Amino acid sequence: MLYLPIIVSIFSLIFAYFLIREVRKAPSGLGKQVEISLAIREGAIAFLKRQYKTVGLVAILLFFILWLTLGGMSGLGFLIGASFSALAGFIGMMVSTQANSKVAEAAKKGLKPALNLAFKGGSVTGFLVVGLGLLAVSGFYLLFQDLSALIALGFGGSLISVFARLGGGIYTKAADVGADLVGKIEKGIPEDDPRNPAVIADQVGDNVGDCAGMAADLFETYVVTIVAAMVLGALLFPDLPQAIFLPLIFGALAILASIIATFFVKLGKSQNIISALYKGLIGAGVISALGFLILVFQISPQFGLSVISLYFPALIGLIIAFFIFLITDYFTSKKYFPVKSIALASQAGHAPNIITGLSVGMKSTLLPVILISLGILISFWFGGLYGLAICVVSMLSLTGLIIALDSYGPITDNASGISEMAGLGEEVRKNTDALDAVGNTTKAVTKGYAIASAALSALVLFSAYTQELANLGTRIQFLLGNPKVLVGLFIGGIIAYYFSSLAISAVGKTASKVVEEVRRQFREIKGLMEGQAKPEYGKCVDIVTKAALKEMILPALLPVASPILVGFILGPEALGGLLIGSIIVGIFLAIQMTSGGAAWDNAKKYIEEGHLGGKGSFAHQAAITGDTVGDPAKDTAGPAINPMIKVLNIVALLIVGFLV
Amino acid sequence: MLYLPIIVSIFSLIFAYFLIREVRKAPSGLGKQVEISLAIREGAIAFLKRQYKTVGLVAILLFFILWLTLGGMSGLGFLIGASFSALAGFIGMMVSTQANSKVAEAAKKGLKPALNLAFKGGSVTGFLVVGLGLLAVSGFYLLFQDLSALIALGFGGSLISVFARLGGGIYTKAADVGADLVGKIEKGIPEDDPRNPAVIADQVGDNVGDCAGMAADLFETYVVTIVAAMVLGALLFPDLPQAIFLPLIFGALAILASIIATFFVKLGKSQNIISALYKGLIGAGVISALGFLILVFQISPQFGLSVISLYFPALIGLIIAFFIFLITDYFTSKKYFPVKSIALASQAGHAPNIITGLSVGMKSTLLPVILISLGILISFWFGGLYGLAICVVSMLSLTGLIIALDSYGPITDNASGISEMAGLGEEVRKNTDALDAVGNTTKAVTKGYAIASAALSALVLFSAYTQELANLGTRIQFLLGNPKVLVGLFIGGIIAYYFSSLAISAVGKTASKVVEEVRRQFREIKGLMEGQAKPEYGKCVDIVTKAALKEMILPALLPVASPILVGFILGPEALGGLLIGSIIVGIFLAIQMTSGGAAWDNAKKYIEEGHLGGKGSFAHQAAITGDTVGDPAKDTAGPAINPMIKVLNIVALLIVGFLV
Repeated sequence: MLYLPIIVSIFSLIFAYFLIREVRKAPSGLGKQVEISLAIREGAIAFLKRQYKTVGLVAILLFFILWLTLGGMSGLGFLIGASFSALAGFIGMMVSTQANSKVAEAAKKGLKPALNLAFKGGSVTGFLVVGLGLLAVSGFYLLFQDLSALIALGFGGSLISVFARLGGGIYTKAADVGADLVGKIEKGIPEDDPRNPAVIADQVGDNVGDCAGMAADLFETYVVTIVAAMVLGALLFPDLPQAIFLPLIFGALAILASIIATFFVKLGKSQNIISALYKGLIGAGVISALGFLILVFQISPQFGLSVISLYFPALIGLIIAFFIFLITDYFTSKKYFPVKSIALASQAGHAPNIITGLSVGMKSTLLPVILISLGILISFWFGGLYGLAICVVSMLSLTGLIIALDSYGPITDNASGISEMAGLGEEVRKNTDALDAVGNTTKAVTKGYAIASAALSALVLFSAYTQELANLGTRIQFLLGNPKVLVGLFIGGIIAYYFSSLAISAVGKTASKVVEEVRRQFREIKGLMEGQAKPEYGKCVDIVTKAALKEMILPALLPVASPILVGFILGPEALGGLLIGSIIVGIFLAIQMTSGGAAWDNAKKYIEEGHLGGKGSFAHQAAITGDTVGDPAKDTAGPAINPMIKVLNIVALLIVGFLV
Repeated sequence: MLYLPIIVSIFSLIFAYFLIREVRKAPSGLGKQVEISLAIREGAIAFLKRQYKTVGLVAILLFFILWLTLGGMSGLGFLIGASFSALAGFIGMMVSTQANSKVAEAAKKGLKPALNLAFKGGSVTGFLVVGLGLLAVSGFYLLFQDLSALIALGFGGSLISVFARLGGGIYTKAADVGADLVGKIEKGIPEDDPRNPAVIADQVGDNVGDCAGMAADLFETYVVTIVAAMVLGALLFPDLPQAIFLPLIFGALAILASIIATFFVKLGKSQNIISALYKGLIGAGVISALGFLILVFQISPQFGLSVISLYFPALIGLIIAFFIFLITDYFTSKKYFPVKSIALASQAGHAPNIITGLSVGMKSTLLPVILISLGILISFWFGGLYGLAICVVSMLSLTGLIIALDSYGPITDNASGISEMAGLGEEVRKNTDALDAVGNTTKAVTKGYAIASAALSALVLFSAYTQELANLGTRIQFLLGNPKVLVGLFIGGIIAYYFSSLAISAVGKTASKVVEEVRRQFREIKGLMEGQAKPEYGKCVDIVTKAALKEMILPALLPVASPILVGFILGPEALGGLLIGSIIVGIFLAIQMTSGGAAWDNAKKYIEEGHLGGKGSFAHQAAITGDTVGDPAKDTAGPAINPMIKVLNIVALLIVGFLV
């Protein structure tokens, strides 16, 4: 059974390889369509290369620090984690940027072949991420059996992920906001109009942010959760190696279930795209639930535990994943009240749109956090701390399929952009737009999933931190009444807020540079507005690339430095408080920003469908403002809180030995 | 020494009475000016009467519940707390609504007499609040010596305060937003233009929100903090009655210091209004610090403690108050970078203004929370839990003077409005505008002060809760790793978010009703836009009154019901988590909303001064949007979090006996 995770993860990579081949075989179309796709691709590769160079320097520095303080094995683990994470992001993005024009081409034939191809493209990233993640963790552990080096491996993944989320997030939103502010609002030209000098940068952004950034984020969440569960297993059941392996086997089973479930994603007669995608998700959940049951039946006697005490937490993990989807869908889909209320408020102007959106974002935190709370209480009730760990591992086991749903988003977004820019006609645009609108919702629900799982897996990391302290022989207790713990809680909140504020203002600063450049081109290039001259796309790409890389450094280093400072200055109690404080404050901020942002976006889309005056109306103007405000929240700051919380917790776990 | 607090509190009320007489003596002006002032006053009284009726019903219900569960004395305490709080708000507002036209009249003679009178008007509320507060607590305790009934007294104050903050906050901002959306944006008429049908409602709102609401809020904070410190004193030093009295004596000394300091508020040759106000604040702080030193020298031997261990916490309380002022001033004043950055971003449009404002709001949480953290650590280091209590009492001892600075705001705001509506001319308007602009900053810093003190005094309440549990013989520990505590922390965060979201959407809903009505009047009343017909001001006042009262109920009952539900369903550990969770999450939300909102407001004022294109420019349009978004945040949801947190904590303290 020990080799199962390795075999499955290799199988997952092979599956991804075959998907890549299929995507490559599909026709890319001709002329302008390919040209645009190539331009997007070049921009994306250029950004990723420069980003990896910057991050590489930080990584090498940290590698040496880890080597010197924690030993060579930890240094090695860190490098593996970092490079696998980077690899997953890179390959996934390469496939996405190839798939975009192919999906636009397939959309000429109809919705079904287009959905098919887009989902295949997304699945590549999905199965790459889980395949590489499971391979890294299980391979490294089988070879070296060194749990603390495994924590360093998780740290490597987390670090790349913070940088990727921030760098990619700043890039994508600065380009998007910059393009919209001048293009849509000042010049009155439509989205994705080829006359807009920032339009290619905008498309590049979709890939480096939503695809590479998201892949790195979920790679990190996946790896770190499994590692945290393994560490906790080792601490709680010192004489039971199965407790360390169990999370890996859960992961392996769920990958198999997810691969089978990809074949369920088929467009039915109703042409309902979202239900086609949900079929896959439900399939994966049900098959996993069955597989977990068989596994737990076999293994629970070895733990001396009842079947229920291991199986219920696992089941609850799957149930949480499912309900998070439903709840986020409710708050961000055009079909329901929250988005409609924002659209309605837009009729009264810019400010009512924003006020309503802020209120919806706040309200959207209620149910997910209640769900998480129930998950904690129930899984703890049945299986104690280890039960909580199993719950999170189970919840995250569906990661492969969920990334597939998410990566499908930027592919269709790009396909939609390409069909507009290349002038492929009404019919094609209608198909790609239908796919794109669903992509908006899947992107939002995936973020909801990532955040909920991040909070839970950070709690597992916190538990590992406290257990490790106990194992080191200290009698440290984290009492709420202890002023150091309290102050730690406050500092955790400060980090979440300061981090978000830096991320948002980074988008603002970078976007204003894009605005300047776009205005300059419209002013200086004669005939641009009339479509007789070509804009200098490359200049915008270059400006965003440089600015995004510069702006990501400070917020990315904040979660690395702060636990070290607090741990050594105020001590382990304050550090414990910091970890929990960042989770409590961070989860609300993250859900508010991602759900609120997606709701703003879809309120705009709702109006663009012709409601409340449609495109060009006063309400539409206000809705564009809301969408623009939501952009940095939902695609930069919000999702980056995820890996930020994990970095905090994992750094704490790495330094715990030096604190006592 | 025991009668000192009572004597001083009566002295404070007499001082307020003499101030009222002086304000009354000042001339009110003639004709239109008085007419408008009367209309504002009528609207404000009508609202307050109806609000008190609604709240009265809830209060009577709670009185019976308290009587039946905790005994008649608690019921009586509750009634006293509630009615004193209501009284302070009512009288303060009566004076403010008289002072407004008198200040406008005084402004004809110059800036100095106008400032003088406005500050006197504000001081009435200030010394009423602290006088009534200290009288209620010390009188009730001397008569009955019943600490648990004293907690009920605090609860009475808190309850009125949540209602007042919410009702007044919804009123003021719905009227403001509604007036601005149609008047400024759709019709292009200036602020406070008499043609706008919502203009009187807007002025009424300033009084019921900023004056009555704020007075009730700080009455509550003041009373509850002293009560919490007394309870904690009794629990920590069971055989030392001085530990119960000390907070009262601190309060008495600071009132004396504040009364003396009012005479320092004089406009210097530089005509710098804010520095005139600050002179008063610094004076009160220094005199209090001296008084506290003498007191502590006398009393510390009775505690068996060093002078330092009681005096340093007290000193730190004063220092925190001072720095909170400086920090909030930095983030919300037109002179510094944060506000200017929002103004600059407005040039790029509505969305950049909002994005920058959100980021500034987030960033503004950093320093205050660090300050609070330092305060906790240092005062705990010197004086333990009791030290923390003393720190908060000392910080809040300046309440009287601070309310004076704050209440000065709505008076000058109204004066400014009246001089515009009555057409008193450029020179008068210039003087009242100068006073009004400073009023914006003092309002913001007062909120910062209220929130910081709320967080600290809620911590004292939490400590009382845990001590009480320990005294009841339970061995309950609030461990961060306990899933119930964790879930409690999450629920605390949920309450803060849900409460804010309800408050903000209440403003949105109510404002949309105002917009409809104002649009209707412009449509149906012929000659209104040309100034030939009078709008029906009363209709707007009526609509806002009804809607605000309806919308305040649900959010106000949330903090009363939730600790009871959580306490009895999930137990005292979860309830403890809830209390801390609401403090941690709530303080960030509150600071972000109040400072961010004030920064938006002043960014607009900065542009209106002629920068970046001045009034009517594109940047100005965007800045108006930001100001409007900030309105419900800074004047409804943000300040209401304050009493909300306290109600949660005080309800927990009331029910603690039933939980074990």
